[in-house]
Amino acid sequence: MYIVVVYDVEQGRVNRVCQLLRRYLHWVQNSAFEGELSEAQLERLKSELSEIIDREKDSAYFYVLEDVRWLRKEVLGRNRGSIDNLL
Amino acid sequence: MYIVVVYDVEQGRVNRVCQLLRRYLHWVQNSAFEGELSEAQLERLKSELSEIIDREKDSAYFYVLEDVRWLRKEVLGRNRGSIDNLL
Repeated sequence: MYIVVVYDVEQGRVNRVCQLLRRYLHWVQNSAFEGELSEAQLERLKSELSEIIDREKDSAYFYVLEDVRWLRKEVLGRNRGSIDNLL
Repeated sequence: MYIVVVYDVEQGRVNRVCQLLRRYLHWVQNSAFEGELSEAQLERLKSELSEIIDREKDSAYFYVLEDVRWLRKEVLGRNRGSIDNLL
């Protein structure tokens, strides 16, 4: 599965969230990560992330696609992530 | 087509980028918008956005899906956007 994670967390938790996400996915932009994960890996990531964030104040969205070929990614401006353009 | 836009722009341009994106899509999180657009609308949005951003410093990623049913969205923490959960 291909995953795009976009998050909005309070400053005090950003580093820990980033460190966790770097272990699973590629940093592509401030508060955005991408990459391939299995269902089990995604569940583990979500469980670890829920230990870090404050569910009342923070938010993380997981956009999950069964196949990366269903996704067309277009970049305007700097392509900041290390990941090559998908298509 | 279903579109997720994630952007990272310098502070001085954030308001204009937000105002533009609000005209086309739903705000769902700081620096993230979602919604349905036609190919023509997407092209117009990208053209207007490229008038605002500094291509050397700023970045905007467009995740484009032919069909929203290909997307599974999961939310951890606050679902800040006004849009109902997709699935």
